[in-house]
Amino acid sequence: MNVFSSDKLEQFLPKVKTILEENLFPLEQAYLHQSFSAVEPELNKVRGLIKEQDLWNPHLSEHHGGLGFNLVEFGQISELLGRSPYGHYCFNCNAPDIGNQELLLGYASEHIKSLFLEPLLKGDIRSCFAMTEPEFAGSNPVNMGTTAVKRGDHYIINGRKWFTTSADGASFAIVMANTNPGAENKYQRASMLVVPTTTKGFHLKRNISIMGEPNDTYFSHAELEFKDCKVPAKNLIGNEGDGFLLAQQRLGPGRIHHCMRWIGICERSFDLMCSRAATRDLGNGTMLGSKQTIQNWIAECRAEIDASRYMVLHTAQKIDEVGTKAARLEISTIKFYVANVLMKVLDRAIQVHGALGITDDTILSFYYRHERGARIYDGPDEVHKSTLARQILKNYGLNTNR
Amino acid sequence: MNVFSSDKLEQFLPKVKTILEENLFPLEQAYLHQSFSAVEPELNKVRGLIKEQDLWNPHLSEHHGGLGFNLVEFGQISELLGRSPYGHYCFNCNAPDIGNQELLLGYASEHIKSLFLEPLLKGDIRSCFAMTEPEFAGSNPVNMGTTAVKRGDHYIINGRKWFTTSADGASFAIVMANTNPGAENKYQRASMLVVPTTTKGFHLKRNISIMGEPNDTYFSHAELEFKDCKVPAKNLIGNEGDGFLLAQQRLGPGRIHHCMRWIGICERSFDLMCSRAATRDLGNGTMLGSKQTIQNWIAECRAEIDASRYMVLHTAQKIDEVGTKAARLEISTIKFYVANVLMKVLDRAIQVHGALGITDDTILSFYYRHERGARIYDGPDEVHKSTLARQILKNYGLNTNR
Amino acid sequence: MNVFSSDKLEQFLPKVKTILEENLFPLEQAYLHQSFSAVEPELNKVRGLIKEQDLWNPHLSEHHGGLGFNLVEFGQISELLGRSPYGHYCFNCNAPDIGNQELLLGYASEHIKSLFLEPLLKGDIRSCFAMTEPEFAGSNPVNMGTTAVKRGDHYIINGRKWFTTSADGASFAIVMANTNPGAENKYQRASMLVVPTTTKGFHLKRNISIMGEPNDTYFSHAELEFKDCKVPAKNLIGNEGDGFLLAQQRLGPGRIHHCMRWIGICERSFDLMCSRAATRDLGNGTMLGSKQTIQNWIAECRAEIDASRYMVLHTAQKIDEVGTKAARLEISTIKFYVANVLMKVLDRAIQVHGALGITDDTILSFYYRHERGARIYDGPDEVHKSTLARQILKNYGLNTNR
Amino acid sequence: MNVFSSDKLEQFLPKVKTILEENLFPLEQAYLHQSFSAVEPELNKVRGLIKEQDLWNPHLSEHHGGLGFNLVEFGQISELLGRSPYGHYCFNCNAPDIGNQELLLGYASEHIKSLFLEPLLKGDIRSCFAMTEPEFAGSNPVNMGTTAVKRGDHYIINGRKWFTTSADGASFAIVMANTNPGAENKYQRASMLVVPTTTKGFHLKRNISIMGEPNDTYFSHAELEFKDCKVPAKNLIGNEGDGFLLAQQRLGPGRIHHCMRWIGICERSFDLMCSRAATRDLGNGTMLGSKQTIQNWIAECRAEIDASRYMVLHTAQKIDEVGTKAARLEISTIKFYVANVLMKVLDRAIQVHGALGITDDTILSFYYRHERGARIYDGPDEVHKSTLARQILKNYGLNTNR
Repeated sequence: MNVFSSDKLEQFLPKVKTILEENLFPLEQAYLHQSFSAVEPELNKVRGLIKEQDLWNPHLSEHHGGLGFNLVEFGQISELLGRSPYGHYCFNCNAPDIGNQELLLGYASEHIKSLFLEPLLKGDIRSCFAMTEPEFAGSNPVNMGTTAVKRGDHYIINGRKWFTTSADGASFAIVMANTNPGAENKYQRASMLVVPTTTKGFHLKRNISIMGEPNDTYFSHAELEFKDCKVPAKNLIGNEGDGFLLAQQRLGPGRIHHCMRWIGICERSFDLMCSRAATRDLGNGTMLGSKQTIQNWIAECRAEIDASRYMVLHTAQKIDEVGTKAARLEISTIKFYVANVLMKVLDRAIQVHGALGITDDTILSFYYRHERGARIYDGPDEVHKSTLARQILKNYGLNTNR
Repeated sequence: MNVFSSDKLEQFLPKVKTILEENLFPLEQAYLHQSFSAVEPELNKVRGLIKEQDLWNPHLSEHHGGLGFNLVEFGQISELLGRSPYGHYCFNCNAPDIGNQELLLGYASEHIKSLFLEPLLKGDIRSCFAMTEPEFAGSNPVNMGTTAVKRGDHYIINGRKWFTTSADGASFAIVMANTNPGAENKYQRASMLVVPTTTKGFHLKRNISIMGEPNDTYFSHAELEFKDCKVPAKNLIGNEGDGFLLAQQRLGPGRIHHCMRWIGICERSFDLMCSRAATRDLGNGTMLGSKQTIQNWIAECRAEIDASRYMVLHTAQKIDEVGTKAARLEISTIKFYVANVLMKVLDRAIQVHGALGITDDTILSFYYRHERGARIYDGPDEVHKSTLARQILKNYGLNTNR
Repeated sequence: MNVFSSDKLEQFLPKVKTILEENLFPLEQAYLHQSFSAVEPELNKVRGLIKEQDLWNPHLSEHHGGLGFNLVEFGQISELLGRSPYGHYCFNCNAPDIGNQELLLGYASEHIKSLFLEPLLKGDIRSCFAMTEPEFAGSNPVNMGTTAVKRGDHYIINGRKWFTTSADGASFAIVMANTNPGAENKYQRASMLVVPTTTKGFHLKRNISIMGEPNDTYFSHAELEFKDCKVPAKNLIGNEGDGFLLAQQRLGPGRIHHCMRWIGICERSFDLMCSRAATRDLGNGTMLGSKQTIQNWIAECRAEIDASRYMVLHTAQKIDEVGTKAARLEISTIKFYVANVLMKVLDRAIQVHGALGITDDTILSFYYRHERGARIYDGPDEVHKSTLARQILKNYGLNTNR
Repeated sequence: MNVFSSDKLEQFLPKVKTILEENLFPLEQAYLHQSFSAVEPELNKVRGLIKEQDLWNPHLSEHHGGLGFNLVEFGQISELLGRSPYGHYCFNCNAPDIGNQELLLGYASEHIKSLFLEPLLKGDIRSCFAMTEPEFAGSNPVNMGTTAVKRGDHYIINGRKWFTTSADGASFAIVMANTNPGAENKYQRASMLVVPTTTKGFHLKRNISIMGEPNDTYFSHAELEFKDCKVPAKNLIGNEGDGFLLAQQRLGPGRIHHCMRWIGICERSFDLMCSRAATRDLGNGTMLGSKQTIQNWIAECRAEIDASRYMVLHTAQKIDEVGTKAARLEISTIKFYVANVLMKVLDRAIQVHGALGITDDTILSFYYRHERGARIYDGPDEVHKSTLARQILKNYGLNTNR
């Protein structure tokens, strides 16, 4: 009956669910109160288990040693993994590595692939992606100050990046920099380069403290500085000037991944909210869930989570069938719609928990802090709404600039 | 690519579209400023045309002389018809007649069918459905004061109904009345009876003025009084005590019809909103659509209309596959979700039109007034939300009464 | 304790309340189902009574035969009058006449005053104000197509206006027209002229049908056409080029009047909502008001109505003390804030009434239709918000054009 | 013109402002990245400075060595102090100490006052207030498990508390416990006792990690356990059974303090939002503040912050004039209204800052995390709304239990 299901998926999901329940949820209190690096050894044991069970790399084609799910199927896996903050990490399909894998698989030379992609697919190393800069509005990737100047068969990179997720401990970064800052076509100014983090001139200045927490390693967001950072010209991904195009390529499926992960967080929070509502005694045996306000919230959350899932999976299906570019408007739509549903569900789940909801005795406050960025990263709501509306208005004869 | 499409549907929809554009939209200014009965002759010409083109009764199975669409397909037809207030009327699939047809087809005796159903299917007569009562909260159909007392082979009906849509000029009413008001099981107290409107004791007291307009005939909502109104016992639909069950049967697909009609209204209003935004000059050549607020509204409406359609069609599919009862929660969900999207879209379309939006120079103000009831009839938002939430909470071990 | 009260006001308000309860509310069902002109004779009797009791013209200074209330006091009178749609009319302080009175009092020659103002103050005639034009965005009064060309000691007016409230049956219009359309300073292009409605070339083309209802006389909104309409040059109000300035003068207190009237409508609707909630039996003796959703609505409405009143009265006080211009931002703030509170209160009051709420058996549906314009006229929400924000941002060094 | 101002206040506020700008804001980055105890020495220097300038204890009457402001005046001071998270702390008018001071001043014996109140007023010690319990819904203070059993001239306390703010390092706690758990009148079951934190049986089990941060000393929220904790009977505040009444006494002004502090946070955030909007270049010289969405947010925030302040100050005035009990409904109203405005302002200020907004480079993310509790503590929104609505509905003849 579920048009988005498949036998293969039905067989895979229960295995993931078992890992979550038996191996990941039990670690939750540990990582709610400790840094990532403190919990990393335990998580790596789980990764080993997943490899043993041949569940590793569910996002890759069979050809690349993965499980050959299409985006509709992987979206549903991603939703399930989203129920734990480290679900994707354990299955090696976590941002930013998954996006980097896709880039390298699609556009890197064999040389680069063997050096950087292979250990990444095995989970032996981690990577990061350096695009956003503090001085430029991140919503517009053609505004960028970092440059990569070609000198002989090298590029010399200079500039400043921030919100470079997972840079701390990563083996390499994919860096977006202007190779041709004066190009008339502003979409052809930038290029992408693989930069090993051990390169001279690559400086991790700080793990940015976000919502009270700098955290570390995989779970960190760095500010980077490039000072005459020199990399071989063959570290280029695709051709010179492809940077913007590659960024767009990277973001399409990336937004499906995020949206489905957010839906997973919604379901997790919804489950906690309902459990609490059903069992919290207000005194004299009346349960919180008998209050109509709580019922309203549960009903509205249910409706909006379901609406989210339908929209995202139909979008994933369109990408599977006709590609990312054709689904551009749907991708903008789900980006802002689902991010806002996520905020609402989290807020209400917390309110239903009362004081408990703001403590770290449940995972809700973790999500509340860590997911506020969902309405900002990969394009804030406002930009996606304008993009969508301006495209619609073109059909009515109106061309507006942003 | 559209999982909800079919060849048959793709062939049918353009024909409907042509009728709307060539025959119905041109009548719009007429019925925005006149009573239904004044425009009725023109509408009946359109009905004739539709019959000639074999597009009549799209909701019926081929066996019953219809076109054999399933609910998923008919939902999409209904959306298209919803772009005109009289779309459903012209194709003979308008409420309340469509619900009455379904009831009689499913549960009436051959005698009743030949007397009442046949002319109804031909469009020779109209009917109405009398359930709601002014003294009882309509959200709870087990609360009812009207009685039908069996005397020999007749029932004697006494009571008061209101919001009996289309009673003015209808040939018969299906009346819900308590035949066994003392039954312990409150869901078995009521029955449904066919009552010709010419029956002695059947009084149409008034066409209720709604939002400033009593209107008439098909487009009216009556207050009725039954005073010793006597009908043959064989006018019973189903068995004695089936009233509540039949009402539930009637409401399931009815809510799909409403929701899809509302989505049609949303699309019509969205189209008007975008046209206006693209062409309204604010002075010095800047168009209204270049304003970010307007763009936000367009984007949010697009997202929520799409979400609505996906949810309703997936619900229709579930009904097609496993029946109304199994889809009960989904039906509650779409009822409140889509009704609220409708209000939001209408409100914004009006605001984009400025002063023009509140005039009757466009259809928006008509919909604004006539559709406010969507959040009330067939169960107000609040009841559907509670129903949904309480059912969900049962899975968490909480049983609450409303 | 109420810082906004005064002895004079405390003595006046109960008298108004008595008139409302004894003379106006009893007419309500009449004017909910009939045109204004049909009820006018009864309303005129009430006007007579008000004159007899020396309650007439409460907005005027004692010098002008009024009662000498300041704006803070009159605001509170206006709130009370707002509980009936014809409260202001009966006390001769209704729009558009009140604004016209203020204009003529402040800026007209004695000649014009004796001809037009005196009978207006007595309530012997009615007037209208013609500014908005269908082809130009009303939110920007410097955009206007109507011209008044000086020929000797006359002006010849040509152009089209709409939403000229109460034009049907009015004795004169105050017309805003460009006397110097090419003036470099766009705020000095327009002037205001008194135009008797019997003047040749003054055409009332139609009473615009709004929300299903053209209505008539005082309660109508006309589309006007001026074709070589010739009026004496001495009918000019103020000087040539003062039009924009005078319009601003007119709007400041006008918005206080509107806001306080809206708060009156809120209180009336709130009262109906609470009455209904307290007495509507859901079956088995449970009242609607015991439902938490209804309680939430009542609490939120109470908070927002109170917030509205405080903001408007503090603004009125500022106008009383330092004038309209100094209170410009506060005036923009209350305009959009209170209009939106009004919509919310009306919507919820209707929802609490269920099906009854959309009928004309209560006044709620009347307000729902007639007040949707509140978010549009005198500047739509969007314009007031931008005005306010841009002014605030100037303090931070940012100057933006709209 | 400001009806809430006074000469005394106008002289005091600029001095506070100077302290904030010169002494507190410079410490901000320190306490955003460090524990409270690490910054405490610096804060204590500021406290010394405030004492030197005779600005200490602005909330106290002159009789008690304070500055003699009424609640309307102190509310406005509190708003200003709210612009820094440690403003109240530095002036010795921070929760929970301020509430404890009020309790002891009003109801404690001279013995208790000299032992506990005097050093508290001097700022030599800190205190805490232990009421909420993890096992009981905090919204209803008559539900409590902790008991204080009288044995001779001592009470023996047993039970568990949490969210005991500032317990870490406090010298004493005021503990609410049932001295008469079986009392028929449930409002007379509890009493309040002063418990030195060095008492045997007083256990601080943990500083609860809230929103990712356990913090420490003043800025912590403890879970406490009382095991046969024995205190002298003369440590009772008021009489046995007064607990509930005293809690109500404490909460009235406490909510004014909170609301005004929240408004201070709103103004601080609003200021940051406007600064950012006015100076953030989107590329090509267009500033973020030129975007209409941002303008809408600024305008709406401005309106709602102003509405909040008016409502709170009018409520404070009512308390000053007729006491807390008479202002009970207004207190409920401002509690939920202002807490929600605070959330909205914070959320939008963050969104305007983009990625920067979720970092700890500004104070916004601190407030975002630390103030989510505002909708929960001192009674969640839902409880205050019901309380208000049920009280209103009593005037319409409806008595409902919660």
